[in-house]
Amino acid sequence: MTEPAYVAVDWGTSSFRLWLVDRAGHVLAERRSSEGMLAAAKAGFSGVLQSHLAAVDAPAHLPVLVCGMAGAKTGWVEAGYVDTPAPLAVILKQAARVPGEARDIRILPGIAQRDAKAPDVMRGEETQLLGALGLESAGDALVCMPGTHSKWVCVKDGTVAHFSTFMTGELFSVVSRETILSLAVAGADDAEDIASFQAAVKAAHDAPAFAANLLFTARSRQLLFGGTPAAARETLSGTLIGAELAAGLSGSVPKTSVTLIASGRLATLYRQAFEALSVTVALIDADDAVRRGLSMAAAAIWTN
Amino acid sequence: MTEPAYVAVDWGTSSFRLWLVDRAGHVLAERRSSEGMLAAAKAGFSGVLQSHLAAVDAPAHLPVLVCGMAGAKTGWVEAGYVDTPAPLAVILKQAARVPGEARDIRILPGIAQRDAKAPDVMRGEETQLLGALGLESAGDALVCMPGTHSKWVCVKDGTVAHFSTFMTGELFSVVSRETILSLAVAGADDAEDIASFQAAVKAAHDAPAFAANLLFTARSRQLLFGGTPAAARETLSGTLIGAELAAGLSGSVPKTSVTLIASGRLATLYRQAFEALSVTVALIDADDAVRRGLSMAAAAIWTN
Repeated sequence: MTEPAYVAVDWGTSSFRLWLVDRAGHVLAERRSSEGMLAAAKAGFSGVLQSHLAAVDAPAHLPVLVCGMAGAKTGWVEAGYVDTPAPLAVILKQAARVPGEARDIRILPGIAQRDAKAPDVMRGEETQLLGALGLESAGDALVCMPGTHSKWVCVKDGTVAHFSTFMTGELFSVVSRETILSLAVAGADDAEDIASFQAAVKAAHDAPAFAANLLFTARSRQLLFGGTPAAARETLSGTLIGAELAAGLSGSVPKTSVTLIASGRLATLYRQAFEALSVTVALIDADDAVRRGLSMAAAAIWTN
Repeated sequence: MTEPAYVAVDWGTSSFRLWLVDRAGHVLAERRSSEGMLAAAKAGFSGVLQSHLAAVDAPAHLPVLVCGMAGAKTGWVEAGYVDTPAPLAVILKQAARVPGEARDIRILPGIAQRDAKAPDVMRGEETQLLGALGLESAGDALVCMPGTHSKWVCVKDGTVAHFSTFMTGELFSVVSRETILSLAVAGADDAEDIASFQAAVKAAHDAPAFAANLLFTARSRQLLFGGTPAAARETLSGTLIGAELAAGLSGSVPKTSVTLIASGRLATLYRQAFEALSVTVALIDADDAVRRGLSMAAAAIWTN
């Protein structure tokens, strides 16, 4: 086993992931837990981190690089923001040192868009971008990063020019659990219904103003025509994603290729959504991207 | 005091209203309670109604006409639907008699749009429409009926040609209570912020695909620029209403006048929303409309 060079941590709102990495960027050990910012704010950030460092036998001198919500005002140490237009290379130069720790622990800043008409913030996704596009990225990219709060990012020559957050994932969660539509999706099994999903994506993409109406049709359709709870769930999901895609793609020239940074079920869903609109995507795994971004930043800070 | 001729009841999902009415349509007594369909389904519909009838000393022979969710499958007696295109005059001909009651109690049907691409249902709003437009209404009207589930109705010569339900009110409720935006609106006072509201209406109307993004700006704006919880609340409300208006007005010719059937706070909000878009509205009070609709139907059934 090679010598570890640093520890990389993706510390989100509700999840914690840690990698022990060598000088060449190879992962020597990994930890995953649900001790995200919300849990760690109660348990104590330092203690949570120490327990995972001990579990992977991280040497006492080993530095730690963190990205994500641990750097928020309500997190461990506020890591501030780099303002748009934000060159990706600048992010790793503004990592905030956590005070009072024997070990060198730094948290990467987020990106802020201080535009009174389109204020926006990201924290964690900038590191995914770095890992997905690289430090020396040239040319333009339209990037879709689906999630609880999906981010659409317009990158020009390695610089985040503009981005928009869509509450798609969180809306799906509350609409399917907390509204009258919970009756329509109750008991839905895991069976996919790609036809219902893609039809809803297309309908919402073509008439996004009707999203709040298309959601309701999931219930009306069941009342008048029957239909499975799974089909209703796919209608909700497809409607919300279709409206997001209408907005995200609205500024792009036709036939623009979209870089999709996603993992697991979300990667599958968004690929099907883009396919329904005949938009080509290049998929980059989100888990890989954030680890690569952290490694690139750590290497730049400590091993160069 | 004149003799009562019938009892009119608007029995919604979460509210119950009863009026004792004379032959000329004058209200002799009124009852309001929160014993809507959900509460009455547990307590028993017949008992709830009897207690209110006793409270207004309704004679034993007096007939009762009901509209609203009491006629739903999950209500008292299923009153069915009239299908679109639905002449308003047909509604009062298809009232369902409640069996097993000494008194003549009837429930008005709802309206169903059995269109596989735009399935939709209403129950209660058809009676408001009847009261607002009258039995002999001629000409076309575009009607907006805001609420938990707003209805937009296209009426042609006294016939409901087409309608769409928007989950605007329910979305506002869950988004402001159950998502990350609850942090942005926490502690909002009742102060109106018409400027924030109208700016959000216009932004969402002009770019409805961005609604899920515009909602999030309520939080980003606070993080980056400050701002009151009340302003954030008005941004949420304005965004959801602005997107609804974009859809509702999308099929109408420019300068169409909209008939707005609403009461109280919703009437004020929607008037301000239409004003932000320079759309003229004719306001009809929703409480008056439903009582008038019930009276017209009761008169046609029992006193003609």
